Amino acid sequence: MKLVVVGGDAAGMSAASQARKRLGGDLEAVVFERGHFTSYSACGIPYWIGGFVKDRDALVARSPQAHREAGIDVRIRHEVVGIDLDRREVVAHDLEAGGEVREGFDHLVYAAGATPITPPWARVRGGGVFGVQTLDDGDAIHRWLDRDPKPRRAVVIGGGYIGVEMAEAMVRRGLEVTLLEKSAQPMKATVDPDMGARVREAIEGQDIDIRTGTHVTGLEMDGDRVCGVVTQAGTLPADIVVLGLGVRPNTTLADESGIPLGVTGGLRTDLRMRVVGPDGPIDGLWAAGDCVQTTHLVSGAQVNVPLGTHANKQGRVAGINIGGGYATFPGVIGTAVTKVCDLEVARTGLTEKEAAAAGYGFVTATVESTSRAGYYPGAASMAIKLIAERRTGLLLGAQIVGREEAAKRIDALAIAVWNKMTVEEMTALDLSYAPPFAPVWDPVLIAARKATDAVHAALP
Amino acid sequence: MKLVVVGGDAAGMSAASQARKRLGGDLEAVVFERGHFTSYSACGIPYWIGGFVKDRDALVARSPQAHREAGIDVRIRHEVVGIDLDRREVVAHDLEAGGEVREGFDHLVYAAGATPITPPWARVRGGGVFGVQTLDDGDAIHRWLDRDPKPRRAVVIGGGYIGVEMAEAMVRRGLEVTLLEKSAQPMKATVDPDMGARVREAIEGQDIDIRTGTHVTGLEMDGDRVCGVVTQAGTLPADIVVLGLGVRPNTTLADESGIPLGVTGGLRTDLRMRVVGPDGPIDGLWAAGDCVQTTHLVSGAQVNVPLGTHANKQGRVAGINIGGGYATFPGVIGTAVTKVCDLEVARTGLTEKEAAAAGYGFVTATVESTSRAGYYPGAASMAIKLIAERRTGLLLGAQIVGREEAAKRIDALAIAVWNKMTVEEMTALDLSYAPPFAPVWDPVLIAARKATDAVHAALP
Repeated sequence: MKLVVVGGDAAGMSAASQARKRLGGDLEAVVFERGHFTSYSACGIPYWIGGFVKDRDALVARSPQAHREAGIDVRIRHEVVGIDLDRREVVAHDLEAGGEVREGFDHLVYAAGATPITPPWARVRGGGVFGVQTLDDGDAIHRWLDRDPKPRRAVVIGGGYIGVEMAEAMVRRGLEVTLLEKSAQPMKATVDPDMGARVREAIEGQDIDIRTGTHVTGLEMDGDRVCGVVTQAGTLPADIVVLGLGVRPNTTLADESGIPLGVTGGLRTDLRMRVVGPDGPIDGLWAAGDCVQTTHLVSGAQVNVPLGTHANKQGRVAGINIGGGYATFPGVIGTAVTKVCDLEVARTGLTEKEAAAAGYGFVTATVESTSRAGYYPGAASMAIKLIAERRTGLLLGAQIVGREEAAKRIDALAIAVWNKMTVEEMTALDLSYAPPFAPVWDPVLIAARKATDAVHAALP
Repeated sequence: MKLVVVGGDAAGMSAASQARKRLGGDLEAVVFERGHFTSYSACGIPYWIGGFVKDRDALVARSPQAHREAGIDVRIRHEVVGIDLDRREVVAHDLEAGGEVREGFDHLVYAAGATPITPPWARVRGGGVFGVQTLDDGDAIHRWLDRDPKPRRAVVIGGGYIGVEMAEAMVRRGLEVTLLEKSAQPMKATVDPDMGARVREAIEGQDIDIRTGTHVTGLEMDGDRVCGVVTQAGTLPADIVVLGLGVRPNTTLADESGIPLGVTGGLRTDLRMRVVGPDGPIDGLWAAGDCVQTTHLVSGAQVNVPLGTHANKQGRVAGINIGGGYATFPGVIGTAVTKVCDLEVARTGLTEKEAAAAGYGFVTATVESTSRAGYYPGAASMAIKLIAERRTGLLLGAQIVGREEAAKRIDALAIAVWNKMTVEEMTALDLSYAPPFAPVWDPVLIAARKATDAVHAALP
């Protein structure tokens, strides 16, 4: 049996590895990867740029060579340019040596990832303008920062978590940093504005000049180098520009090859990660990672959530199924976490805006508490916000902003969302308590109590 | 309406406060407390003895005076000695002024807490032999440690979490510390022996002479002062002895008053915390805290779990119901956490021994992973053990031993147990991921994968 995989990062390599692990020598697995690296942590790039992580290789979970030793024929610097579903064949360009390669397949995994959203004015790659998507991007940023004379002023465009993480990394590298966000608060896709205001304070507290409500309209170039960012409020000088405007599923090749796209522009799959066309699942065609759309289990909507953790799970599920096993990926509930300096920010389920968009009527409750018993050294304040459906009290979403030991509490809330708990039932949860770890009423329980009161108060 | 409460710590005061909050001046609430303090954190005593917490008052969430200002008639140093259910009256001794007080009631909350288990040989209170149950105990230990000449050698009897916390506190106070445990590993009621072995290493690593398999048979006294602990392996010199042998429900008074006890020796209640007798719930009689038995939601057994977090919840539930509201306490799932030096130890659900005792057939899986992405600074190793029912894969229990940011993951597992998740469903959970917080496969997910494999492997 022959497997061809398009894309050698988390999703593609997980699929190939799982299938190979199950079928051994009965499976011939070929992976085409456009870049130089496989199985790497794109999420770690800001920490590598910022110097928290010293070595690029630390971000590589498994190198092409290691995969080859495990029996997977990995071909880096190969870009797949055509998929022929009828002939069951892909065509790839060898980006180094030139020339074309053709490979037939029984199973194909499409795992081409995502592409940074790049407005027309930003279509200047190189020259000091960078996305943060691949290790190759990271290499390019490192080289630019090490130029002589060294860049002094960085402008990061987009106040989502990648933008914020990159702004912090640039501060650590000694640059003057401006962070531009078109909406009124940073991380608007992650948390509600009230929680975003707390994030904003943390950003300001570390010498980042954050400017919200700022629309970028163009870049100013000095020859082939960027020298400024043009906004509705004037031009900002810049020696390096980082784009953190989000990504979209990289499905151009799929679309050109006649593979149907879902409503979000990502590939549509069934629970086993088989690509679904107009007539149902397409035999032997699989997809995983940032290029697929998935079901949001709280809103019921189809969504694109480009996160390494989903890519790994989806790839693993595809690989198990290709290998003759049985596994499913039911969907996501929108869990995410990030760190802004020492501020921890986490969310799960739906934000207020998302809940409203899904049609839910809801109440909210926000509590301030501490990560440990108030009297125990190191107790740090944290805020938890819960969003619960009116009437039923179903937990729709949660957000946490705090310091040390705060954010990972989101996992507890994520599992509560996953299991469709009501905030009233949550008040009885048997959560761990000891003074070094929580007040006797854990912040999660206090929030559940307050949300329960809000649900009761909203009853007719 | 008149409420009388027996016991002024977490359970009793929560009940009184909730009822008063709902009924205001329509409720007369009288609380009798034998000691000097109300609403305090007994769990914080080891940290106060050890100097992590400087001030005793920090452990008091709400003083008698504060409660009085909120309209609750708190009478400290009053010991209730009789309850007359027919006449609806209690009799209390005033331990300071002497004399007897009688109070009638419409509702009675029995919240007398627990009593340290004290073998006959240990019935020497004072003289350097201490339990760790009340703030008054803590005061007595402090005074003893400050004597001149200062005690030099401490022997802690019992290797459960209180014993281990107290042993650590004594080390911090500069004493030579021996910790005696009759079984083969410390914390045997908390974690399985394989995880207990890791705890043992941490204990040994901080200059505590831990001796397992050691049976204490008596104390050696020098006049009215303890000077040694007699074991089957010889006598250990001791200037102070701390008993950490566990507690039992303090239900002597209830029993004497004709209030029926449950199978564990604790009071039996319904979901609303009404005391249940042979003919069903007894009108106007409530109980909460360490003196009640509760349902273990995984084993189905009746258990005594003396923890402040349950006492607070149960007291609150009783108070809401007394106040005319509706709330229930469904039971516990055995969640607990503690810290041994910088080692974090947590558990939820059933241990192997408990699962076997309940009649479950099960498989286990233990994984070693890290609290953060392996490449991120501060990534610390942690072990997670899962216990899953054979066939169904139902998560029966979990244990975690790790360093920073490890133990609070138990809450996620506790909510999975609470919701009767299978380990296979857990592999799909949408848990938070970012390099400062987790590897791309969170340790919880890795453990779920391995446990799923174990369930599959055990299928016939």
